[in-house]
Amino acid sequence: MKSHAKRTIAVHLILGAALVSMAAGQETSPSPTPTPTPPLYSPQTISELKQLQQAALKSDYAYRQVAHLANNIGPRLTGSAQAEKAVEYVAGELKALGLEVQLEKLMVPHWVRGEESAALVEFPGMAEKTTQKIVLCALGSSVATPAEGLTAEVVVVRDFDELEALGKDKIAGKIVLFNYHFDKQMAAQSHAGDAYSQAVKYRGEGATAAGRLGAVASLIRSVGGAEFRLPHTGQNDYKNDAPKIPAGAVTAEDADLIAALAPQGTVRMHLVLTPQTLSDAPSFNVIGDLKGAEHPEQVIIVSGHLDSWDLGTGAIDDGAGVAVSMEAANLIQKLHLHPKRTIRVIAWMNEENGLVGGKTYAKDHEKEIANHFAAMETDGGAGHPLGINYAVKPEAKTFFDAVGKILRSSGAGILSFSEHAGGADVGPLTKLGVPGFSPIQDNRFYFNYHHTAADTLDKIVPQELAENAAVVAVTAYALANLEKPLPR
Amino acid sequence: MKSHAKRTIAVHLILGAALVSMAAGQETSPSPTPTPTPPLYSPQTISELKQLQQAALKSDYAYRQVAHLANNIGPRLTGSAQAEKAVEYVAGELKALGLEVQLEKLMVPHWVRGEESAALVEFPGMAEKTTQKIVLCALGSSVATPAEGLTAEVVVVRDFDELEALGKDKIAGKIVLFNYHFDKQMAAQSHAGDAYSQAVKYRGEGATAAGRLGAVASLIRSVGGAEFRLPHTGQNDYKNDAPKIPAGAVTAEDADLIAALAPQGTVRMHLVLTPQTLSDAPSFNVIGDLKGAEHPEQVIIVSGHLDSWDLGTGAIDDGAGVAVSMEAANLIQKLHLHPKRTIRVIAWMNEENGLVGGKTYAKDHEKEIANHFAAMETDGGAGHPLGINYAVKPEAKTFFDAVGKILRSSGAGILSFSEHAGGADVGPLTKLGVPGFSPIQDNRFYFNYHHTAADTLDKIVPQELAENAAVVAVTAYALANLEKPLPR
Repeated sequence: MKSHAKRTIAVHLILGAALVSMAAGQETSPSPTPTPTPPLYSPQTISELKQLQQAALKSDYAYRQVAHLANNIGPRLTGSAQAEKAVEYVAGELKALGLEVQLEKLMVPHWVRGEESAALVEFPGMAEKTTQKIVLCALGSSVATPAEGLTAEVVVVRDFDELEALGKDKIAGKIVLFNYHFDKQMAAQSHAGDAYSQAVKYRGEGATAAGRLGAVASLIRSVGGAEFRLPHTGQNDYKNDAPKIPAGAVTAEDADLIAALAPQGTVRMHLVLTPQTLSDAPSFNVIGDLKGAEHPEQVIIVSGHLDSWDLGTGAIDDGAGVAVSMEAANLIQKLHLHPKRTIRVIAWMNEENGLVGGKTYAKDHEKEIANHFAAMETDGGAGHPLGINYAVKPEAKTFFDAVGKILRSSGAGILSFSEHAGGADVGPLTKLGVPGFSPIQDNRFYFNYHHTAADTLDKIVPQELAENAAVVAVTAYALANLEKPLPR
Repeated sequence: MKSHAKRTIAVHLILGAALVSMAAGQETSPSPTPTPTPPLYSPQTISELKQLQQAALKSDYAYRQVAHLANNIGPRLTGSAQAEKAVEYVAGELKALGLEVQLEKLMVPHWVRGEESAALVEFPGMAEKTTQKIVLCALGSSVATPAEGLTAEVVVVRDFDELEALGKDKIAGKIVLFNYHFDKQMAAQSHAGDAYSQAVKYRGEGATAAGRLGAVASLIRSVGGAEFRLPHTGQNDYKNDAPKIPAGAVTAEDADLIAALAPQGTVRMHLVLTPQTLSDAPSFNVIGDLKGAEHPEQVIIVSGHLDSWDLGTGAIDDGAGVAVSMEAANLIQKLHLHPKRTIRVIAWMNEENGLVGGKTYAKDHEKEIANHFAAMETDGGAGHPLGINYAVKPEAKTFFDAVGKILRSSGAGILSFSEHAGGADVGPLTKLGVPGFSPIQDNRFYFNYHHTAADTLDKIVPQELAENAAVVAVTAYALANLEKPLPR
């Protein structure tokens, strides 16, 4: 529903503008001379935005950056050596672009994956002395099973209602499998975010709900659209009122298998998950400022998150977002442009399992919030962008028409007013009233790879990444040079 | 090329028939009364074929059979307890249909997968004390690395020519990665078999070629079209003139990663593969005869292979082929039909890694080859069927026009003359002159799942499986009741 609503609004905006022009053209009698409206963007800015767009579409800088993050550094789970290497790398690259770079210190969670394996050890029709392998992964924050694993009957439920209906008697001592399906048709029609929202609550809350009823472990059907026996990891959030039980995600196929066998007779699983939660570790948000020529104190954040899950190499989630943000600064420097406000590139730490980076930044910069002119984040992959999501006051809705007109030439002309524009890391800022921005990206295939081992560089089409960089660079530079303040 | 050629021939056959009819209709002067040609199929047979087709399209028997093989029994690698359970199960089901069932004994290879893991331990840009996980699997027949694994530099080559050009100096002591790409565009255009043929020789011969030059292990880029970090297993065939070195398949993504890093500097891999080759084990082809009413000694084989690779549950390769063959017998019995010749359902053992079942059958039945009227095998998945491939003498090309006409109503009317019609298991028979038959199946997605952990029941669309059963049942029954011998 959300995306559809967005599109409708965008169309109305465009039509609205057209109607206004037509009405103006049809006037027959002279109207009173209006007070001249100061332009939103100077002719020079408009020209520079076009230069930026064209340069972005031709540049391979962003692709080389994400290639380095994904291939040469690899998975960058918060607290890992790779995450720290990535901090060091991005800081170095931003310095090389001539930015003022700071590392803002954080204390982040440090969870490490261990062994993860499972097998059905009893099921109807089985050959003696065999098992059926179950492909799964631990969810972030999961506690461990005993090192040798645990063995229990599996109870399959579709949702929380079914779990509650079964109650303690039928759940205590069992492994619960939440077989809630990610809606692939919804995703195929570009409502992937909605499909994700519906399914992801079982990832976040399933273990707590099952634990309350005495289950010994909680498994979910992987949240994602693929059918290639890929488990999708992601964060589990224990609540304090339930015992912490091991939490994992089986593949869609394995969920189907168990769901097919369970009505035929007893299904028992041996489950081994041995992750560990270590002491919190020091880490950093990487912040690089390209100082504004007129209002250096006013900041436009351009960002992605540097940490990734550990199964893949974090190319689309979110090496791509970091890379296009770096590209914005690279192009502005390369073209010798001088933004009026400060463009602040941020590579956030710990988006995936704690949001410590985003939260800490908002807290540390609390007194400067009024000077945060806008906050942009790219965290929806690297698919072809269609335009910009923006969360601004209604009276500023027309402020970006000129930007949309420029971006239209690379297929990204939709301007979509959305109160949730931005991203998780800039969420603490947008909640405080900072206008949020994010590219609208093709997400039809994003959740096929999201949080899986297959989030790798080959999933990025270089030209589509460049198109995203064009949207980000143009939007950021427009914000930096907007001739009016954005109403708050 | 192969499939395209097939299609062209099919179109010519149809057009040819049409032209003959037109020519007949345009004759103006009476022609000499021809000697009446005896019909190829009796009106009763034609009626029964239509009944079979309609019943097949409505039946879920085949789907329930493949569901049991895949879900309740699971992976069925030759020599495994599951393979033996499957023998027992299918024999029981065929007896329940009223067939005369025999288990024909074989001695089959017994290779078992062990641990399989790999990581890059040195590569350009890496964070200290980290590694990058490489997702891979052992290939069938592979020997093991030492239990603790081996570590060596990786040399990437595209093909055998590049390997030879590097020579012993640059290969000895190294792990060779054959990065030969499966042609996804070819597969997308229904030439998947051709794409497979081009790539699969590296799976079969790579380890031997690398071993000859002193490599310590041989890896291939997985042979298949998917991009979901799935390794594809399959058989490796050591030749006797080279040392046997461990042989594995990395995923497409891991091949890309290594190929991207290698030109930047040294890439070293730690590789653990601990498969074992055990003593040959006894196993069986399952054979069920539905005796012919007029020519019981004449046999039409209807078959699929019961063994599968061990990573998935062998739903499309080839539980589906066994299931549609069983369905042919089920429907004939259910409709109380009486084939004139014997319909012999065979569930072959050991297609994947030895072909012992097919070879042994041809040898054991050598003296009855002349009585093998035709041999049909379904081993291309469960995708929508387009028609029939058949390998018959040119003078018999028109024998199946009536069958094609019936199958046309379920979209399977293409009759494609192909000298390779049949399947691997019936290959030893077709080489001896037995006419071969197989359904033409949609294979555009088949190699995304082929020999992977994702070959699972959900990949089968029940209605498409039923369509395949219709093709198989109609073709088999037509052959059993054909009023003329097939020329040999």
